[in-house]
Amino acid sequence: MRTCYTGQVCLDHLDQTVTLFGWVHRRRDHGGVIFIDLRDREGLAQIVFDPDNEAAFEIAESIRNEYCIRITGLVRNRPEGTINPELKSGEVEILCREVEVLNASVTPPFQLDDDNLSETTRLTHRVLDLRRPQMQRNLMLRYRVSIEVRKYLDNLGFIDIETPMLTKSTPEGARDYLVPSRVHDGQFFALPQSPQLFKQMLMVSGFDRYYQITKCFRDEDLRADRQPEFTQIDCETSFLNEEQIREIFEGMLRHIFKVVQGVDLDATFPIMSWDEAMSRFGSDKPDMRVKLEFTELTDVMKDVDFKVFSGAANQAGGRVVALRVPNGAALSRKEIDDYTQFVAIYGAKGLAWIKVNEVAKGRDGLQSPIVKNIHDAALAEIIKRTGAQDGDILFFGADKAKVVNDAIGALRVKLGHSDFAKEHGLFEKTWKPLWIVDFPMFEYDEEEERYTAAHHPFTSPKDGHEDYLETDPSKAYAKAYDLVLNGWEVGGGSVRIHREEVQSKVFRALKINAEEARAKFGFLLDALQYGAPPHGGLAFGLDRLVTLMAGADSIRDVIAFPKTQRAQCLLTQAPSAVDEKQLRELHIRLRNIEVK
Amino acid sequence: MRTCYTGQVCLDHLDQTVTLFGWVHRRRDHGGVIFIDLRDREGLAQIVFDPDNEAAFEIAESIRNEYCIRITGLVRNRPEGTINPELKSGEVEILCREVEVLNASVTPPFQLDDDNLSETTRLTHRVLDLRRPQMQRNLMLRYRVSIEVRKYLDNLGFIDIETPMLTKSTPEGARDYLVPSRVHDGQFFALPQSPQLFKQMLMVSGFDRYYQITKCFRDEDLRADRQPEFTQIDCETSFLNEEQIREIFEGMLRHIFKVVQGVDLDATFPIMSWDEAMSRFGSDKPDMRVKLEFTELTDVMKDVDFKVFSGAANQAGGRVVALRVPNGAALSRKEIDDYTQFVAIYGAKGLAWIKVNEVAKGRDGLQSPIVKNIHDAALAEIIKRTGAQDGDILFFGADKAKVVNDAIGALRVKLGHSDFAKEHGLFEKTWKPLWIVDFPMFEYDEEEERYTAAHHPFTSPKDGHEDYLETDPSKAYAKAYDLVLNGWEVGGGSVRIHREEVQSKVFRALKINAEEARAKFGFLLDALQYGAPPHGGLAFGLDRLVTLMAGADSIRDVIAFPKTQRAQCLLTQAPSAVDEKQLRELHIRLRNIEVK
Repeated sequence: MRTCYTGQVCLDHLDQTVTLFGWVHRRRDHGGVIFIDLRDREGLAQIVFDPDNEAAFEIAESIRNEYCIRITGLVRNRPEGTINPELKSGEVEILCREVEVLNASVTPPFQLDDDNLSETTRLTHRVLDLRRPQMQRNLMLRYRVSIEVRKYLDNLGFIDIETPMLTKSTPEGARDYLVPSRVHDGQFFALPQSPQLFKQMLMVSGFDRYYQITKCFRDEDLRADRQPEFTQIDCETSFLNEEQIREIFEGMLRHIFKVVQGVDLDATFPIMSWDEAMSRFGSDKPDMRVKLEFTELTDVMKDVDFKVFSGAANQAGGRVVALRVPNGAALSRKEIDDYTQFVAIYGAKGLAWIKVNEVAKGRDGLQSPIVKNIHDAALAEIIKRTGAQDGDILFFGADKAKVVNDAIGALRVKLGHSDFAKEHGLFEKTWKPLWIVDFPMFEYDEEEERYTAAHHPFTSPKDGHEDYLETDPSKAYAKAYDLVLNGWEVGGGSVRIHREEVQSKVFRALKINAEEARAKFGFLLDALQYGAPPHGGLAFGLDRLVTLMAGADSIRDVIAFPKTQRAQCLLTQAPSAVDEKQLRELHIRLRNIEVK
Repeated sequence: MRTCYTGQVCLDHLDQTVTLFGWVHRRRDHGGVIFIDLRDREGLAQIVFDPDNEAAFEIAESIRNEYCIRITGLVRNRPEGTINPELKSGEVEILCREVEVLNASVTPPFQLDDDNLSETTRLTHRVLDLRRPQMQRNLMLRYRVSIEVRKYLDNLGFIDIETPMLTKSTPEGARDYLVPSRVHDGQFFALPQSPQLFKQMLMVSGFDRYYQITKCFRDEDLRADRQPEFTQIDCETSFLNEEQIREIFEGMLRHIFKVVQGVDLDATFPIMSWDEAMSRFGSDKPDMRVKLEFTELTDVMKDVDFKVFSGAANQAGGRVVALRVPNGAALSRKEIDDYTQFVAIYGAKGLAWIKVNEVAKGRDGLQSPIVKNIHDAALAEIIKRTGAQDGDILFFGADKAKVVNDAIGALRVKLGHSDFAKEHGLFEKTWKPLWIVDFPMFEYDEEEERYTAAHHPFTSPKDGHEDYLETDPSKAYAKAYDLVLNGWEVGGGSVRIHREEVQSKVFRALKINAEEARAKFGFLLDALQYGAPPHGGLAFGLDRLVTLMAGADSIRDVIAFPKTQRAQCLLTQAPSAVDEKQLRELHIRLRNIEVK
């Protein structure tokens, strides 16, 4: 057996004989001696093969990169000048006495230290890709996070209870992955989009505090950084109110950051209403590292000649805002053009701007294609409200509120992450957690001409908002909260409805009739009748959280065997065709393809 | 917020005012006072409502079973004679000062303390069924086991790495659950039967020590105590041999039993070869609590007149054994008839027996319908080998070895668990772990006329058995091991093949041709070429382990939301019909059923 991990050999082992297992990371011949950097999951160590030891030297000569070997040797100081302070083992080397090749390797298709590999190469050869030290670190980090989550929740009396993977399809929300039943001809299971209803059932059963780190599934349209299966830290508790629930889970995040990263997050996370977040940042997950925010101008623009502004300001649901960028007058025409193209992605028809050269000069101090169509009073109000100073630039969004929020919200982040922002103190490199609370209960779906649930239909309305469910759903706000970290929604949850009559009112507001509600959610409505306790909870996205902590580019870098954006596993070639016999047993046939 | 769980109120809280949440377990009026047993996950406490407190008393009068309430009151000693030593709170009661009904309950469909509920009732009303104290204890136990598993493995440097749920169908072994792909027309994912190949990939990637507590799926024919989805404690390690791996995992079982149950298992678990287990017990998972074993008689019976014995003894693959039951001559004719019917379930055509009344009298001391057809030498050898004593009974099995092993093996367990066995010291009520090792690599499938893998095709042959893969697969034994506890296989694993050429040989022995091997397992064969380390592991069945520990009747009693034996969830009514639109998106249609 090994003495320790290869990466852990250090001065403590000086003059000891150690046995190590690992992979040949690099081999080089130097002055008649062979050096091998041996690698395992904990790091590297330098092994020296002296020609005096003929047997070992001969084997060392045959060894190539990625061979798996066992070595026994003496730990000694590295010669002066060859110490590597970046390695734990950097002050020592091991003089090999005995070496055994446990398994040879063909030449790998790429160098492990090549940082420019395509995603396709990496996922096809995932087994080798996972050998890269960064990937080892990422998955170790993921593990440390999950085990610390468990410790924290265990201490608070939460218990891990497994909920089913083969569940019922309820086509609200995202698209389900379906699993045909062999026993029940023509029927299907669905993979869970989340354990939402099961965890609520567990609260009704009296388990009081539940958690689970579990896979969830959504067959959504594929876009960047989504996986068909993803991992949720899913939690629920009884008898606590919104504030108490948030306190527990911000404590969890603080614990993880402290223990795993050595980072102290804010002692109390700021709390912001959804209304305020949308008003100031056009986003319900604002990146608070960015020191830029919206200035509301809708009321100011109603009577200006510039039709883009006055049109938006006067239309129902229209919005006009400015985004003041301190010192932004230095931005070049090219940069402004690029940002104009960027906001177009979000549906903006243009990007109006004013460079503020000299506030004191009034209209003459402003440089812009649009100022001539804005009257003096409006210009003065813009300057006053934005607090613009000499040298700033103001960008404008004017459209339906959604387009303005999306476009100028994205511009805020884009600009805020730019080198310009970093150089001008508009970006603070730190961790910025933030609770967003008081979400609307419903969103209006123009296409379906009905309200849909903004969170999910089991979210409790705020106290006093119950009547709005029947009179004006648009006024109903929810006991819902998201935990946002550096612009990523890392967690979200709510207090749930625990009374059957309130749940039925929400179904009615969603135009789910009684029969449909019974067919889909009868078990929930039944359960709520048996003394269901007040309860609520939260789910964290583990993949996202770890990606943030690892500083990784993609959630695929913190998942051992991810799917591509086309929902394929390039390693195993899943999905794949299956035998006709299998389909027959499942009582299904293919719609479009003839099977041999 | 509550002071503590209801079940935890005790003398420590004497004279304190406490706030408790819970459910009304029982309510009774006695001498003008109302008593409520309030229940939460930690137990019960007695709440007293005095009519002097009119407001609280009035509410208490309206309260019914399973109402969810909050109470605040003073903890005081129970009156003499009303102390309940079975409850943690049994020495105190709480005089209610204030009570709030958090949620009323309609009358439950059954009493929570009714022990004679049908499975259908329990699973349909699972939310209420889970409120029963026994079910709460079972799921708590399951949680304690899983968290202790994690602690134990974490200490040893194992790391939890998640493997995919949407994987590739490889129709070896059991039947896959399939998931149609929406993006890839005509293709399917499969839910994992186990993370076997992924964990091997992780070893090749250098993660060295892996574990995961994860769901696995097998669409098998339904029989007692199987679930379509079940939970595996899945482990793998590199660089260790069989003995070292077993040592780690028997340590894990010892740790769990010690910490969770307060039970000391054997300091070293006995190890028995598969050959010996089959020979002595007719089973590869013998219940060692039963003090009965087979006596081999095949060679003795070749020339007896009794055709049932001689026929079996002379047929290829035939076997004749005796099962000696000390003091069994006391068994009645009725009991023997019942056992005869019982072994018929396993294919035995009868159950021959000899009652040993007086050994000293030779043939005359034996009572049996069959002795007249067995010559003296054989009779003497039977008595000698079995060690039969006056008052014993010998049962016989004679048939193909499989039938004998199944039937007499089952008889051994059935008899060994009977009251007779318990009264006569043939059953030891204790924990009896046992390793079964050295399994055959292959079983011969008569129907398909080929060998199939006894464990799975990735299991390493014993040292020196590699050549048998090509010359005579039936002689090849495997580095495989099962952990058996009281007759249940609770864990199983093996050292894996880590060389590509050995893996290819095994595929050939299984008549999987090169093209097929590449299509199905190409990624494994590739991975083994890149310096795959020696590795092996083990998987425990969490459901079974916890069922054993809980002393539960069925694994359904340790799973929150199990399926029935017909693979249905009676709570949510899954599986269910789905919309035609969903099927269309998945490029499938139903074979037999018209959809509206």
